[in-house]
Amino acid sequence: MQIDINLKDISRNYKVYIDELKELKIDTKVAIITNSKVGGLHLDSLLAVLKCKEKFIITLPDGEEYKNLKSIEEVLEQLFVSRLDRSSVIIAFGGGVISDMAGFVASIYQRGIRFINIPTTLLAQVDASVGGKTGVNNKFGKNLIGSFYQPSAVYCESKFLQTLPKREFAAGVAEAIKMAVMFDKEMFEWLEGANLEEKTNLQQLIYKSVFLKAKAVEADEREKGVRAVLNYGHTFAHVIENETGYKRFLHGEAVAIGINMANSLAVKLGLLTDLDRDRIKNLLIKFNLPVEYKIADLDVFYDAFFLDKKSENSKIKFILPNGIGGYEIRQDISKDIVMQVLSEFK
Amino acid sequence: MQIDINLKDISRNYKVYIDELKELKIDTKVAIITNSKVGGLHLDSLLAVLKCKEKFIITLPDGEEYKNLKSIEEVLEQLFVSRLDRSSVIIAFGGGVISDMAGFVASIYQRGIRFINIPTTLLAQVDASVGGKTGVNNKFGKNLIGSFYQPSAVYCESKFLQTLPKREFAAGVAEAIKMAVMFDKEMFEWLEGANLEEKTNLQQLIYKSVFLKAKAVEADEREKGVRAVLNYGHTFAHVIENETGYKRFLHGEAVAIGINMANSLAVKLGLLTDLDRDRIKNLLIKFNLPVEYKIADLDVFYDAFFLDKKSENSKIKFILPNGIGGYEIRQDISKDIVMQVLSEFK
Repeated sequence: MQIDINLKDISRNYKVYIDELKELKIDTKVAIITNSKVGGLHLDSLLAVLKCKEKFIITLPDGEEYKNLKSIEEVLEQLFVSRLDRSSVIIAFGGGVISDMAGFVASIYQRGIRFINIPTTLLAQVDASVGGKTGVNNKFGKNLIGSFYQPSAVYCESKFLQTLPKREFAAGVAEAIKMAVMFDKEMFEWLEGANLEEKTNLQQLIYKSVFLKAKAVEADEREKGVRAVLNYGHTFAHVIENETGYKRFLHGEAVAIGINMANSLAVKLGLLTDLDRDRIKNLLIKFNLPVEYKIADLDVFYDAFFLDKKSENSKIKFILPNGIGGYEIRQDISKDIVMQVLSEFK
Repeated sequence: MQIDINLKDISRNYKVYIDELKELKIDTKVAIITNSKVGGLHLDSLLAVLKCKEKFIITLPDGEEYKNLKSIEEVLEQLFVSRLDRSSVIIAFGGGVISDMAGFVASIYQRGIRFINIPTTLLAQVDASVGGKTGVNNKFGKNLIGSFYQPSAVYCESKFLQTLPKREFAAGVAEAIKMAVMFDKEMFEWLEGANLEEKTNLQQLIYKSVFLKAKAVEADEREKGVRAVLNYGHTFAHVIENETGYKRFLHGEAVAIGINMANSLAVKLGLLTDLDRDRIKNLLIKFNLPVEYKIADLDVFYDAFFLDKKSENSKIKFILPNGIGGYEIRQDISKDIVMQVLSEFK
């Protein structure tokens, strides 16, 4: 299966392949950027299909805490020592942390070299694989330094997901549910009945998610409009992640809780029925995702919305479902109403 | 006067204005990135026309030796402390070093914010103002880390050139001569008679140069084809700059020598007459540019061609004039012929 990603500058178009990685021929030097864990589990399988002129393996420690400029500098150093040139190719082989960093490195090495993304987590396959967002964290927040840079190709292989811990798998499903609620009622209903342990269903999940994400990205490459809809659940999730020091929840888990919170706000505003809110909640629960969170201090939680870089000019942008399969972007919601909703999570 | 820069992705189109900076209204926060020298000479004049919500001045020490990732990190830190958001604007106010760094920062701050370039040297106005090349140096070479990132607008003001040292002015003229030889015989002939101390002539020089550069960039934004022609003289210049530790010659001066060397090669290959080589040489001399260089060791000089990142797969790419106003890109020239030409500069 494959999905075409069509961008404004057609010279940057590319394809996302699902379970199509039989042979990868590259006529130049290649640097594979991976982490020690993914490398140990799956590097043999990648090396078995990769045919290239000369290859270098660069491993980073596994973990979000290494997603910073220091790691970027270390990778750049290794690329220069290996004398990669402007025709060389970088392969990202890992989860979202690796693809964000490898993509960023590819975008700034000699002003940009080709970059192939092979995401090995469900979250990275359904979400980070399309869109061209790259970057690292710093002490001021997450993904605050980076670029928009499109890969030359993306290979999503379902076999790499077999070694994924259950919680990480579920975290990926959360982002897929997010897209179904926003854009695609049929997909939502399919998810309600689907057993994702079956390979064809898993392939379908990846396909449908990538397809929806692609449509949003194509319409709005630089996140000035519709692409913001992909932040459904994230406005709340970022505060939860911040409050819990990015330790208690995986990103997708925080998004699941955030979706449930956004839904309560949508119900309060009359955009969503109680029934649909519960239906979404039940789907999240079906895939072992958390939906509840005990807010310690409502005021602290509310104020934390404004630390998010996506809140321009101090208005909170809420992405809300307008029924299942539809959305509204609202920036006019009073503090009073938001506080009422937050108090449901006390 | 203004020149439209039309790119493949039309949403990134912008204009270069020449002597049109009467008022600059920006409805958001602005960070002006400049160096201590330019700031001291001209910042008052910029601040007098800038109307914005809130402004921050960030100064870097003057000099190529500060064009590195460490400076980039320091600027990023100041932007985060000043809480610039995704709607904010960066203004580059200085020569090529400042615009390369400010553009790079703008391209990676929160994945890219708007960037207005106000170049204050002739070199930066006629050359770096168009093209979207940003970047910094590292121990492996010049401009090896960076991005392609287009400004939102460029303002070239001839008045800022009044304080420019004579050598720096001449260095800018070298890049203009480069473009005339490659693309525009009429401009070349105009330059032969022009007195650049007259303001209208200076404006014409900027206009013609920006216009030619714009055409090359529009045709080939990412330097995969015709844009390489802008490296006329640079293949030799980079080696000269390297050999002399970037201290003896300004970049434009090294380019002037490089143009003269490339011309000798073009004569040897029958692309250029002796007469035209001398005519170009005389034009360089008219503008107080160096044209001679004593190569200490021919073999060392030749081998240094291969350290240049633009030499992919170990073939040297020579950009040569095919008469005045025409060019050829040659990658097939034997070492023997090149050595014969180099020996003319012994």
